[in-house]
Amino acid sequence: MNIGFIGLGGMGQPMAEHLLAAGHTLTVWARRPASADFLLERGARWAESPAAMARACEIVCTNVTGSADVESLAAQLITALKPGSVHLDFSTIAPQAARELSRRYAEKGVDFVDAPVSGGTAGARAATLAIMWGGKSALAERLDPLFACLGKTIVHAGASGAGQVAKACNQLVMVAAIEATAEAARLAAAAGVDFAKVRQALQGGSAGSRVLEFFGAKMAARDFAPGVVARLHHKDFVMVMAEATRQGVPLPVGATVMQQLDGLMAAGWGTEDTSRLLCVLERARPAHLI
Amino acid sequence: MNIGFIGLGGMGQPMAEHLLAAGHTLTVWARRPASADFLLERGARWAESPAAMARACEIVCTNVTGSADVESLAAQLITALKPGSVHLDFSTIAPQAARELSRRYAEKGVDFVDAPVSGGTAGARAATLAIMWGGKSALAERLDPLFACLGKTIVHAGASGAGQVAKACNQLVMVAAIEATAEAARLAAAAGVDFAKVRQALQGGSAGSRVLEFFGAKMAARDFAPGVVARLHHKDFVMVMAEATRQGVPLPVGATVMQQLDGLMAAGWGTEDTSRLLCVLERARPAHLI
Repeated sequence: MNIGFIGLGGMGQPMAEHLLAAGHTLTVWARRPASADFLLERGARWAESPAAMARACEIVCTNVTGSADVESLAAQLITALKPGSVHLDFSTIAPQAARELSRRYAEKGVDFVDAPVSGGTAGARAATLAIMWGGKSALAERLDPLFACLGKTIVHAGASGAGQVAKACNQLVMVAAIEATAEAARLAAAAGVDFAKVRQALQGGSAGSRVLEFFGAKMAARDFAPGVVARLHHKDFVMVMAEATRQGVPLPVGATVMQQLDGLMAAGWGTEDTSRLLCVLERARPAHLI
Repeated sequence: MNIGFIGLGGMGQPMAEHLLAAGHTLTVWARRPASADFLLERGARWAESPAAMARACEIVCTNVTGSADVESLAAQLITALKPGSVHLDFSTIAPQAARELSRRYAEKGVDFVDAPVSGGTAGARAATLAIMWGGKSALAERLDPLFACLGKTIVHAGASGAGQVAKACNQLVMVAAIEATAEAARLAAAAGVDFAKVRQALQGGSAGSRVLEFFGAKMAARDFAPGVVARLHHKDFVMVMAEATRQGVPLPVGATVMQQLDGLMAAGWGTEDTSRLLCVLERARPAHLI
């Protein structure tokens, strides 16, 4: 297939590489052209603009930061994409933004598919991502072979926006687990117990999780170099809470985690790892210890 | 070894059975003698009282509900246990209660070991529990062969009380994950997305966990029959928050989860599964939907 790809960051580049390796004709465009060099050397084609890419491709993939970035690209793609083509967006954006983009594209006979992913750069490189997508189920036939190049768990969550709702749930559960792990690490340290041992015990029981494996290890080692930079989790969480407000549901733990992420950002740790949530707790020293 | 066991509930009975099957001489006592029948039929001996058991055994195990239950048994055991013997407590009790029991026993030359477990009745039956213990490290030589009959992950967390601190961390992380999963299920439902699909997607990515596997499935199926009854998680969480106050550390997500567990208890769901936290969220309907 003729596939376009915009957004060649830590996630996008290995994903685009997998599509190229699977034999697809890959066209790329990037704001900073140097970020495309790696793929161009491996046979990808260069498009002069997103619109030029849209004219050449039946599926245009995007993997950028937030709603505004996708909307800005969509404004350039929508007039150039042919009826029957697909804008396949892997970014994490607001469910409502995905629903609205889908409606706007539908007027042109183009499908917009929200297909956010989970699994981080390691999952992108290993092609073991979880992909949760929203859009017409009839599109599965065309999209499943692409998804199979990128991930291991492929779930059609429902209509447009459903993929982003699933991703919102993913970020809610994941970052809440990071915060709970940080609170456990803080409690263990205050009680004089080595958190590395606690983590090892927990991983063997009912509290075991991927978050405890990855973020728990980073907290135990006090290694705050990112994985995913915390400001992206903060950005995602703002969308989680906005969707909750839109749907009229209370998320008490979600709201508390939002506060702690705000504290992390205020401390200037937005470009470090989200395991810095531990340090937000450490800053709040009770009066009798100061 | 001559081992005593008190507390033959859903966890204790299979644990005692594994010790018996491993060839140890097992002596049991129970408030309701009928609960010992299963083990007596398989060769266990009956003690007329906890004190009689203490006189006959070099290690007395207990697996009861809370701090008060262990303290009440300890009051009967302490005068009868010989110097050099061990009271090995698998219950989940307050770290501070474990520290104090250890001090009191030490005056008699007896070791008190806190060894709470994680993994539920399924883990107890399969002998795959995580066991996190606190006490003198020199005891490992005598205790490790027993632990090996019961669990797969054995961690010496530190001095007396450290096992209970690890268990407090375990309950904090686990119940926070149940609450976050409930919030995700509520958000998905409100947004018209099938939570069973969301859960499947999440389990394949960075948010994957044992809680999502077990409690997520129960929420998706709206099956609120217990696993562990919620009032036990509530009881454990009261101890988590008490230890946090004692150590002077803030647990913002912990405090929020405590509130939701209080809501669950107030709704009369204490004898059902903790996945009922979903229903606590469902009760809080925003004004514009009522």
